[in-house]
Amino acid sequence: MIVILKPDAGEALVQDIIAQIEAIGLQAHLSKGQFRTVIGVVGEEGTIDKEHLLSIAGVEQVLPIMKPYKLASREFHKADSVVEIACPQSGTLKIGGGSCLMFAGPCACENEEMVHAIARQIKAAGAAVLRGGAYKPRTSPYSFQGHGEDALRWLRDAGRENNMPVITEVMDTRHVSIIEKYTDVFQIGARNMQNFNLLFEVGRTRKPVLLKRGMAASIQEWLMSAEYVLSQGNRQVILCERGIKTFETALRYTLDISAVPVVKANSHLPVIVDPSHASGVREFVPALAQAGMAAGADGIMVEVHDCPSKAMCDGPQALLPEQFADMVRTLERLVASLGRKFCSVNAMAPVPV
Amino acid sequence: MIVILKPDAGEALVQDIIAQIEAIGLQAHLSKGQFRTVIGVVGEEGTIDKEHLLSIAGVEQVLPIMKPYKLASREFHKADSVVEIACPQSGTLKIGGGSCLMFAGPCACENEEMVHAIARQIKAAGAAVLRGGAYKPRTSPYSFQGHGEDALRWLRDAGRENNMPVITEVMDTRHVSIIEKYTDVFQIGARNMQNFNLLFEVGRTRKPVLLKRGMAASIQEWLMSAEYVLSQGNRQVILCERGIKTFETALRYTLDISAVPVVKANSHLPVIVDPSHASGVREFVPALAQAGMAAGADGIMVEVHDCPSKAMCDGPQALLPEQFADMVRTLERLVASLGRKFCSVNAMAPVPV
Amino acid sequence: MIVILKPDAGEALVQDIIAQIEAIGLQAHLSKGQFRTVIGVVGEEGTIDKEHLLSIAGVEQVLPIMKPYKLASREFHKADSVVEIACPQSGTLKIGGGSCLMFAGPCACENEEMVHAIARQIKAAGAAVLRGGAYKPRTSPYSFQGHGEDALRWLRDAGRENNMPVITEVMDTRHVSIIEKYTDVFQIGARNMQNFNLLFEVGRTRKPVLLKRGMAASIQEWLMSAEYVLSQGNRQVILCERGIKTFETALRYTLDISAVPVVKANSHLPVIVDPSHASGVREFVPALAQAGMAAGADGIMVEVHDCPSKAMCDGPQALLPEQFADMVRTLERLVASLGRKFCSVNAMAPVPV
Amino acid sequence: MIVILKPDAGEALVQDIIAQIEAIGLQAHLSKGQFRTVIGVVGEEGTIDKEHLLSIAGVEQVLPIMKPYKLASREFHKADSVVEIACPQSGTLKIGGGSCLMFAGPCACENEEMVHAIARQIKAAGAAVLRGGAYKPRTSPYSFQGHGEDALRWLRDAGRENNMPVITEVMDTRHVSIIEKYTDVFQIGARNMQNFNLLFEVGRTRKPVLLKRGMAASIQEWLMSAEYVLSQGNRQVILCERGIKTFETALRYTLDISAVPVVKANSHLPVIVDPSHASGVREFVPALAQAGMAAGADGIMVEVHDCPSKAMCDGPQALLPEQFADMVRTLERLVASLGRKFCSVNAMAPVPV
Repeated sequence: MIVILKPDAGEALVQDIIAQIEAIGLQAHLSKGQFRTVIGVVGEEGTIDKEHLLSIAGVEQVLPIMKPYKLASREFHKADSVVEIACPQSGTLKIGGGSCLMFAGPCACENEEMVHAIARQIKAAGAAVLRGGAYKPRTSPYSFQGHGEDALRWLRDAGRENNMPVITEVMDTRHVSIIEKYTDVFQIGARNMQNFNLLFEVGRTRKPVLLKRGMAASIQEWLMSAEYVLSQGNRQVILCERGIKTFETALRYTLDISAVPVVKANSHLPVIVDPSHASGVREFVPALAQAGMAAGADGIMVEVHDCPSKAMCDGPQALLPEQFADMVRTLERLVASLGRKFCSVNAMAPVPV
Repeated sequence: MIVILKPDAGEALVQDIIAQIEAIGLQAHLSKGQFRTVIGVVGEEGTIDKEHLLSIAGVEQVLPIMKPYKLASREFHKADSVVEIACPQSGTLKIGGGSCLMFAGPCACENEEMVHAIARQIKAAGAAVLRGGAYKPRTSPYSFQGHGEDALRWLRDAGRENNMPVITEVMDTRHVSIIEKYTDVFQIGARNMQNFNLLFEVGRTRKPVLLKRGMAASIQEWLMSAEYVLSQGNRQVILCERGIKTFETALRYTLDISAVPVVKANSHLPVIVDPSHASGVREFVPALAQAGMAAGADGIMVEVHDCPSKAMCDGPQALLPEQFADMVRTLERLVASLGRKFCSVNAMAPVPV
Repeated sequence: MIVILKPDAGEALVQDIIAQIEAIGLQAHLSKGQFRTVIGVVGEEGTIDKEHLLSIAGVEQVLPIMKPYKLASREFHKADSVVEIACPQSGTLKIGGGSCLMFAGPCACENEEMVHAIARQIKAAGAAVLRGGAYKPRTSPYSFQGHGEDALRWLRDAGRENNMPVITEVMDTRHVSIIEKYTDVFQIGARNMQNFNLLFEVGRTRKPVLLKRGMAASIQEWLMSAEYVLSQGNRQVILCERGIKTFETALRYTLDISAVPVVKANSHLPVIVDPSHASGVREFVPALAQAGMAAGADGIMVEVHDCPSKAMCDGPQALLPEQFADMVRTLERLVASLGRKFCSVNAMAPVPV
Repeated sequence: MIVILKPDAGEALVQDIIAQIEAIGLQAHLSKGQFRTVIGVVGEEGTIDKEHLLSIAGVEQVLPIMKPYKLASREFHKADSVVEIACPQSGTLKIGGGSCLMFAGPCACENEEMVHAIARQIKAAGAAVLRGGAYKPRTSPYSFQGHGEDALRWLRDAGRENNMPVITEVMDTRHVSIIEKYTDVFQIGARNMQNFNLLFEVGRTRKPVLLKRGMAASIQEWLMSAEYVLSQGNRQVILCERGIKTFETALRYTLDISAVPVVKANSHLPVIVDPSHASGVREFVPALAQAGMAAGADGIMVEVHDCPSKAMCDGPQALLPEQFADMVRTLERLVASLGRKFCSVNAMAPVPV
């Protein structure tokens, strides 16, 4: 950490700050320039508090040298992490380290039949993991809020039938244990990226966690939220870029495509892209999915619906099953041209549930 | 709601959409222009779904005419709402309708003595409501997370001693009942503005709720979150602007001062400003507090600490007690020049707890 | 255009607005809903002014149905526009309609030798158009401002030698005629995207114009700026996305990758991506270039320098020539997988200048 | 400047960088920490280039200690600058150092009569400087672009008649000399804040320059643009905050009220607020003007029109003359409560022109 003093900072202040730094076992390097006095702090930055130093009158700036996250950092763990997701019948899906995954399914699980029908169609088209909402975060209290445990059951059964692991969003610390029973991957939504108690709770399970980026979260804050999960012992974190809030209103959010290579440079965790929520418009989903994979993402998550105009939420952004199939074929060619590939397991004959 | 069709939309689509609108008991007004066909929907917008219409192929845009919130709207409730907060010993504080309130206190309740000491000092200087954190939302899992129930007790006792109602943040649905026992006002933090289950839970209590704006929330989304609380029967909602995320990095957030008059125009709920979190820097707090009151806010919430460089969080933004006292005197003159005033009750002799 | 009246708007206002609409030869369609009165305007929106209607007391909202640009719109010109750039010795480069172009070169033309050296290297690696700055927009008045006409001469000569058309930025209406003499394509920089007099001036020439998006410009404002050029009779406009300002500070700007498909949907003009300025960091340029081409861009513009640490500006973002060559090879495979290709002409034997 | 090396930077790199620093006459301080090597550079930061250092392989970060502007900085010039504007008949208006100014007038000078009529009304209500557009920056090439030199003449004459200095926007380097003849203060609009050649040109005149903040400009970039003007010898710069682009769409821009105290802390230049362009809506102008003055602004600039629904541009944001008069009375009380006051000179009897 580097402490820069105000131009009028006197000798007493300098000595006071040095004493404080040494009191916690670190070394202070003093450097008096023509215009400013600078104190360098040598040692583990974690043990000295940036805010404490900033609170001292006479201090102008405090510049951290190290990243504030550790377990999530590439410096701590040099190789790409590979997250493994067991399939209900047999086989294991891998994401990270060059292995890509396709997540797809309806926005909300609306009824048992539609979940099964869509699962079959997307499995045939190349999806590996089945997504579907049971508890839905809705902007309006008057909107459909999800079918809860019924939806979890439909999702699990459709996953078993098609040998697809399932993922669903958890929004409330009180729902972690029931969702853990039914699903294979926890999804933390953008609005809950800094719901720190929820992060702690899923960090205490041993199921993979897909952590969406908050729409106003910096990449650093996002990795700090991953650190919350990792710090509890759960090392199975997948990041998901889904668009940020900017002044541009042509689409619902602005997909921050740079987040993909920036995360890769700073962290070992796999990262995917969600072009459905980023755009909010079906027509733009394939182009953004292509961009995501070309930028180096480890996978894509999209919404698919067999009758979008009857969808209970987010219909405008859902692909039709045949559009999804087309998109997957293009993505396969594209990632092959870059030397990577999508991971899949064979579909099994439906197992009586 | 107004539905605009794509240039190439044919007669069959027009008839289909009209039939759908009429099927739910609304009227459709057809208007064929030179370049576009437009269908106006007459009736309660709540019963027809914008996303459903947008999902139909051939529809270009769907423009809502009405606001999506109702109970929070000025149209629904013309007069300013006044929220009343009972003081522990005697008297009632009012916020809204020309009556302003000053909320102050430490970021976190660090120990019993400091809470009492700061409470006494800020009461003497003009604060009406005592704030203090018991459960702290921290960006890092390794930072101090708050003293929990101990802190709640210190806060309640310091409030009683000084006849000040107390407010603290609730972050987890599992904490609502314990916090309800100890405090007078729930605070929903910016990161939880769209933690919808939490909004439902505090909406089911009968204690006032101070709802901070999310750092990426539009004013409309913020009012929709207020609607969540109101929809459960709790009409005691106070809004709090605390800065949004923008490209400007000179301060921690960008205080959206326009939010104050825009909320006033669209809603009857009281709205306050938090210049401490908006700026993150003590030196800029008074200017932003002045701006907030001049823009029409119903109050201010600031952090005060008697030794900011020893604060366990957010020290750089905490005012010293004497700075706070100066600020209050200036604000009193300023709001008097605009014909409003701060509400207060007399301090009582300390009551043995 | 659709005019929505305030809830308390009376009959007199309705009649007054209708009269105003009819007075300019348009038709008004009245629709009285339960909560609002709505007036639809039928005819060319261009002849009625949104701001005029909004200024009338009693009007709540005015919603345009049509886009405010015409010549730039896909509705006006359904097929992709193809911009042709003649090469100095022989051949013509095409951009648009499936033909992609690679623009590359140094940030600033620093001296004659370096321009020639870099031109040769990037031509060999696959660049089609040579870029280089003669007049540089610099944040600081104390920074190097470009070598002016000398640089224009070096650029033209290096272009001739390698049969590459050249592009350079024009910043001042007074420089249009001299730059026109030396270069093949005008570049309008992000900071001048709404320098309307400059747009008019280049619109009056007959040389192609590459129009960068302003860092705070919406896609609609960007297309309106293209309309400025088109309206003067110059139909050779190429758009360039180069990143917008957002709250994210990991890289210099946030590349708005969605702008590529959104521009394609709304306009017939070719659009390219500049990952050098978007990221500001060499290491991230290839991933963003890949994302741009995968999203459907018609080309890429990057900065290349043979010794970035000696560059007079923007060294950190310049690729080394061998990095550029690697990137081009990857991009060629990638665009081939999507059925498009880069346009090029053969290098000629150097011609004595 | 502080140079932080990558974790794997070897001794040779360290020695190379130190040699480069010493070669330009500065001193290098080496500090080897547990995790990083840091080199402090002692001396005038201006002589060493941040980008050069960043371009060297092995360098992770370069952190400047000093601000990049000098003449604009509070460190260079401790006291508030006071800009003086001579009135056409007699007297001088001062802005800065506690003296505030009210700028008002129509968006565009539409015809001779309206300019005179509005000038008289706003002078009577308390305006000191008359604003009015002659060359208008319009988003659309098809919109009214201003009456040019005619408008300049109307403006000058109305100013003379009412003893008000006049201000108008300059958009093109070719117009500087004609505008200089007719007006007292140059206005640089938000879209031209980084039109560097234009800044140089007005910097070479000796008339005050009002520099609006670009809608995507950081406060630092804005002060760098002021530095462009100052560097040419013109020390009469007034800054004007007029709103920035953010995700919030309730109003046209987001007024960055914090910019006022942040500019005051970092610069000696006077700063005013323009609530008309920030909001785009008449109804919100007074609240934002109050906020601006309460935050410490040295003045306000607003648009006034006697018949906004007939305005040729920006009608929805123009105050009526009586609304303007009310606003001024409130602002006078407000700034008096804060110990400041508006500067004015007496109106003279109309002088035959």
